[in-house]
Amino acid sequence: MTSTSVARPDEVRRYNRASLLRLLHVTGPCTRAALATELGLNRSTIKTLVDGLAETGVVEERVPRSSRGAGRPSLLVLPQPQAAVVLAVDVQVEHVAIALVGLGGQILGRNRWNLHGRMREPGEVITHVVESTQLLAADLGVSPVAAGISVPGVARRSDGYVHEAPNLRWTGVALGERLGAGLGIPVTVGNDAEFAALAEHLRGAARDSGDVVFVSADIGVGGGVIAQGTSLRGGGGYVGEIGHMIVRPDGRSCYCGNVGCWETEVGEAALARQLGLAEDSPRGAIVAELRLLDEAGTAPERLAEFAEWLTLGLVSIVNVLGPELVVLGDLFTVLPQPVLDGVAEQVRERSMVSRAVGGVRVEKSALGADVKLLGAAESAFEGVLDTV
Amino acid sequence: MTSTSVARPDEVRRYNRASLLRLLHVTGPCTRAALATELGLNRSTIKTLVDGLAETGVVEERVPRSSRGAGRPSLLVLPQPQAAVVLAVDVQVEHVAIALVGLGGQILGRNRWNLHGRMREPGEVITHVVESTQLLAADLGVSPVAAGISVPGVARRSDGYVHEAPNLRWTGVALGERLGAGLGIPVTVGNDAEFAALAEHLRGAARDSGDVVFVSADIGVGGGVIAQGTSLRGGGGYVGEIGHMIVRPDGRSCYCGNVGCWETEVGEAALARQLGLAEDSPRGAIVAELRLLDEAGTAPERLAEFAEWLTLGLVSIVNVLGPELVVLGDLFTVLPQPVLDGVAEQVRERSMVSRAVGGVRVEKSALGADVKLLGAAESAFEGVLDTV
Repeated sequence: MTSTSVARPDEVRRYNRASLLRLLHVTGPCTRAALATELGLNRSTIKTLVDGLAETGVVEERVPRSSRGAGRPSLLVLPQPQAAVVLAVDVQVEHVAIALVGLGGQILGRNRWNLHGRMREPGEVITHVVESTQLLAADLGVSPVAAGISVPGVARRSDGYVHEAPNLRWTGVALGERLGAGLGIPVTVGNDAEFAALAEHLRGAARDSGDVVFVSADIGVGGGVIAQGTSLRGGGGYVGEIGHMIVRPDGRSCYCGNVGCWETEVGEAALARQLGLAEDSPRGAIVAELRLLDEAGTAPERLAEFAEWLTLGLVSIVNVLGPELVVLGDLFTVLPQPVLDGVAEQVRERSMVSRAVGGVRVEKSALGADVKLLGAAESAFEGVLDTV
Repeated sequence: MTSTSVARPDEVRRYNRASLLRLLHVTGPCTRAALATELGLNRSTIKTLVDGLAETGVVEERVPRSSRGAGRPSLLVLPQPQAAVVLAVDVQVEHVAIALVGLGGQILGRNRWNLHGRMREPGEVITHVVESTQLLAADLGVSPVAAGISVPGVARRSDGYVHEAPNLRWTGVALGERLGAGLGIPVTVGNDAEFAALAEHLRGAARDSGDVVFVSADIGVGGGVIAQGTSLRGGGGYVGEIGHMIVRPDGRSCYCGNVGCWETEVGEAALARQLGLAEDSPRGAIVAELRLLDEAGTAPERLAEFAEWLTLGLVSIVNVLGPELVVLGDLFTVLPQPVLDGVAEQVRERSMVSRAVGGVRVEKSALGADVKLLGAAESAFEGVLDTV
């Protein structure tokens, strides 16, 4: 239970200003008229807010190029990317990517390096992120005001503590604290699939859905859930590990200690196996083989078992969580379209809850390789838009 | 995006009044001092609110029986059950129970009848609920102002449409609309496990946890999720069907069309089977057999397979949702304690996410057979406390 207090006019103005900025940030340039309609505010309030933001260079106004009708056209309001810049970091098993992202979600510049040998040790990654950020920021002439870090593991939102990132072999890393100290700005650390779900929800395939599960695979399989428009988190702010749902109790041993985790049947190693390749084949070899199968028209047949395990896991997830949309990311997006179509149809037909929600949709990620980076940026923007 | 407006003093008063009533309703009698602390309001505001509520008979004030210290004791504020009465209905496969529940959560009176033959047809159930409610309300001299109906199936929260309640053989029943018309009060329809989760969260084993999964079994297996203090619902307001997570793809056929749903391994029929009884044995026979095993000390051994399937499903749920607490209800509560203890320990040790959240707890429901009824009542109270 929390107490309430009467909102003061300056609080209301601040709230309205943040709402307007959030709208511009997510949807891009809007006319003043559209802002008024979307925010439910009158046009003079919008004018005051926009004038204030234009004065400090946060937005710019332009006459729209084409405007129908006889009246004076409503001015177009454009967010200025440089007005608020955040750092996004995507730590993956094979590489680390960083980007500086401006208001409106545009990537202003980026850098990326491979991880090998000792480079994967947390201290080295942190040092490299800090140094690369300084160089990139200097090149671009900007200063990030917050950072979001995506990690393939179990991370606590409150303080950025990484409990376990098994495929990186990280355990108990105070990543948020250490990166925050190095960068000198607030840092948010999150699970990669959670950030990807956030990005798809704000800017990708799930823009129009409030109830979405994002599932993605590379070496591991992870998931993020948006329920009623909000990221789902469990106790202690940890998100779940969808890849460790047990789907085949008489199957393969998983590093987590169980047998038959979903990840052992639909991760990268499982796909390589199904294609007759070595389990540790590089992504390129897997993609090349998939292309061959697709051209020969034999993909659905050759990948039948993989598709069935993907279907089974998705049916369980849909039955447990009842989303209206499932977005598949990363490795799953390189599956031949006939295979994806088959899985989507099976999930729709075989999930009891899909029948209730009128047929769950299963779609590919719309944001491609940048999805985790964009999600990390959005998590950083969450605390920034109120203070720009 | 929604618009905002400056809160007017009467809105603030109404909000504070509802918060105070909600606190009294959930926690029971409180001193004025405790109310002030809990709500973060000063004592004169509390006095004004309590005086207003006492005048209209919603609360009563008393000098506490024992009070330490030298000063004048803080008056005890008691919610008056008759000030707001709701109808709670629990439709189960074998019977329907109704109760009139007063402010504070006390059951003022109840009725219950068995379902057999045509009585299970929706129209008959609706008629019987309406008639029994009228009789019970007249007996008690109260008038319910809202109703909550718990159904073992897939129900849409917005309008109370029951998409599918397989064990009742109901499909496409406009239960909310039809009962609302019959009763003449607002009706909320929900999934039984969702309501049970709500009740455990407000009044039972999960009072101190914001991230809880409630799992219960009778003929079917269902679950309800509280995430960050709120009931989790998916697309269209439907909750998930945890019992239809697939745990044993080479197992038994489920009526839902899949093979190996969790419910086929940990529902009532599965438990009877494991005990060497007929699958359709009555609950009494199952409970008697369990007691014999418990007395002989052989329960963990004889129920090993059942316990393993229960564990596997719970490990998956904990890994996907990351709760801090799992509450087991209904049939699971009659399992011998050594079996439950073994499951709890296994789930804690074998869930990757449990290790992150510091060890998930697995506990029995604290509310017994009334849990769904109490949850249905709370769902009805949700819309009532603002207007008492």
